[in-house]
Amino acid sequence: MKTLFTGGVKSGKSHLAEAYILEQAGGRKPYYLATTEFVDDEMRERIRIHRQRRQDAFVTIEEPVNLLGVLQRCPGPVLVECISMWLNNQLYHGAMEADILAELEAAMQLPCAMVLVLNEVGLGIIPDNALARQYVDLSGRAAQLIAAHCERVFFCCAGLKLQMK
Amino acid sequence: MKTLFTGGVKSGKSHLAEAYILEQAGGRKPYYLATTEFVDDEMRERIRIHRQRRQDAFVTIEEPVNLLGVLQRCPGPVLVECISMWLNNQLYHGAMEADILAELEAAMQLPCAMVLVLNEVGLGIIPDNALARQYVDLSGRAAQLIAAHCERVFFCCAGLKLQMK
Amino acid sequence: MKTLFTGGVKSGKSHLAEAYILEQAGGRKPYYLATTEFVDDEMRERIRIHRQRRQDAFVTIEEPVNLLGVLQRCPGPVLVECISMWLNNQLYHGAMEADILAELEAAMQLPCAMVLVLNEVGLGIIPDNALARQYVDLSGRAAQLIAAHCERVFFCCAGLKLQMK
Repeated sequence: MKTLFTGGVKSGKSHLAEAYILEQAGGRKPYYLATTEFVDDEMRERIRIHRQRRQDAFVTIEEPVNLLGVLQRCPGPVLVECISMWLNNQLYHGAMEADILAELEAAMQLPCAMVLVLNEVGLGIIPDNALARQYVDLSGRAAQLIAAHCERVFFCCAGLKLQMK
Repeated sequence: MKTLFTGGVKSGKSHLAEAYILEQAGGRKPYYLATTEFVDDEMRERIRIHRQRRQDAFVTIEEPVNLLGVLQRCPGPVLVECISMWLNNQLYHGAMEADILAELEAAMQLPCAMVLVLNEVGLGIIPDNALARQYVDLSGRAAQLIAAHCERVFFCCAGLKLQMK
Repeated sequence: MKTLFTGGVKSGKSHLAEAYILEQAGGRKPYYLATTEFVDDEMRERIRIHRQRRQDAFVTIEEPVNLLGVLQRCPGPVLVECISMWLNNQLYHGAMEADILAELEAAMQLPCAMVLVLNEVGLGIIPDNALARQYVDLSGRAAQLIAAHCERVFFCCAGLKLQMK
């Protein structure tokens, strides 16, 4: 069983995804795969708030790049928080789009129960710098690839979730 | 009874919210709380169009900052048009995020029937200036806070509304 | 019968609209109105991928500006791919907003069966340049105008479609 939570910045998707996997896990302690790599003060504060919310409900794994490797060894269920940061890290380390999507495809074929979180970034004006456009395209392709493998897909807005699949 | 209309620029959310509150009011004349403060030519034209559409259907109150004070004295039902502009005004006048959200929380606990309009701004690429990022975060938190107090939440797009709650 | 597919960049709206019109056409070969005018390398690659996907399933017409003229002569069903590019071309050639919307209104009153694709661009932070703001406003007005004439409107995200009307 795989589920995608997508939505905008501060749409409540992380909170909704956490509540959802805890309910699905039915008492088992789920894994929490944190993909954040680059940390400034602003980010540190966000991470602190996220950690506080997780408390002791999850087993946290921190891995910014090797998504497939971690998921292959993870018995699940696992919350991947988040795919957007992982895409960003991959681009930063020079990975090619085709390789990024191939790794994601392989990860989605694992039997492990997963809840994935991804920022929807394509609903604003098209950015005028090429790197941002590349990211928007890659993010949309990743969203489509993930959604195709998911039994459920939720679009989040204002702390609410709307089931698209 | 509280209702949130959210959506993008020119999604039809204001028009839909006006039609909705007029229908809910059932013949009573609702209040219209206009929060716009800073007015250039472009804005003046938008206001003119909005006013023209309202005609004599509403009792208009103009208040850019003191949302809670106005709503405490308003018997309702009231259309708050819009929260996004009020957030913008608060930041301009140097209000702290915690205080802004506390005032909003207090306003949402009033018994007055309200329809609130808020721009969804978090579904594009994350802006590269810190002030815009702060605004996007604040807007998302405000949306979640409001939606938690609303019986109904609508996401608007292409002049149509989709009920999320 | 008219249908609008809207959504963000790489939301799958073009692919979904193509599959939809082919299913609706029931064996007839639909027209494909391609509105792209300005072509750089990035765009050329996008067009190549689109063409490849269409293969021999459509009769392609290329017209960047004269939307109404082409649609008046088209027996349909026709996929208009896309309105966003047509709006962009019209602005580039100096057309006034009122004239653009009047041409669109006339096109939507034609009896021809149409499926239209339009980028939703209004859900990010409001752009700080006036031309981009003008485009966002025009795009939203066009979306509302089209949706008002459509029997069905779909919001697309992550390769999935959500029926709004």
